[in-house]
Amino acid sequence: MGRVVVEVMPKPEILDPQGKAVVGALPRLGFTQFTSVRQGKRFELEVEGDVTPEVLAAAREAGEKVLSNPVIEDVVLVAELTAELGGESA
Amino acid sequence: MGRVVVEVMPKPEILDPQGKAVVGALPRLGFTQFTSVRQGKRFELEVEGDVTPEVLAAAREAGEKVLSNPVIEDVVLVAELTAELGGESA
Repeated sequence: MGRVVVEVMPKPEILDPQGKAVVGALPRLGFTQFTSVRQGKRFELEVEGDVTPEVLAAAREAGEKVLSNPVIEDVVLVAELTAELGGESA
Repeated sequence: MGRVVVEVMPKPEILDPQGKAVVGALPRLGFTQFTSVRQGKRFELEVEGDVTPEVLAAAREAGEKVLSNPVIEDVVLVAELTAELGGESA
């Protein structure tokens, strides 16, 4: 069983109200280091076999066609899920 | 200027209706490889200086206290944003 991580972020020029709300709240909670916050989505897709190049290509296509809105979002990462990428070290 | 990526996923035992909706739609759109999908959040936090260990610790704390709901979510990744993690290769 393999897992692929697909990550989507708003395009840089797109207004990000969620990110604005978070960066506004952080100083009130004692976090003064951060000058901006952008919020996107992280998907973990499971496949039965190994994560082959074909699986990665299908995950990228799913990312572009189903998991994101290409008008306002970019797919910024498609990779096999490893411990470095936040996979449980199972 | 440095950037930190903080990523949050639903705890494994938590029902993920968004993920269920996506995995239901994928086969209809020709993507039959994926047996499950889980959806979480990706944040990019900007800091003025470099990403120091203190900045990473503050980002993790912000992740746990502000960017996620610890009852139903886990912070699965806190790292300096690099091209490998989907940072624009600026």
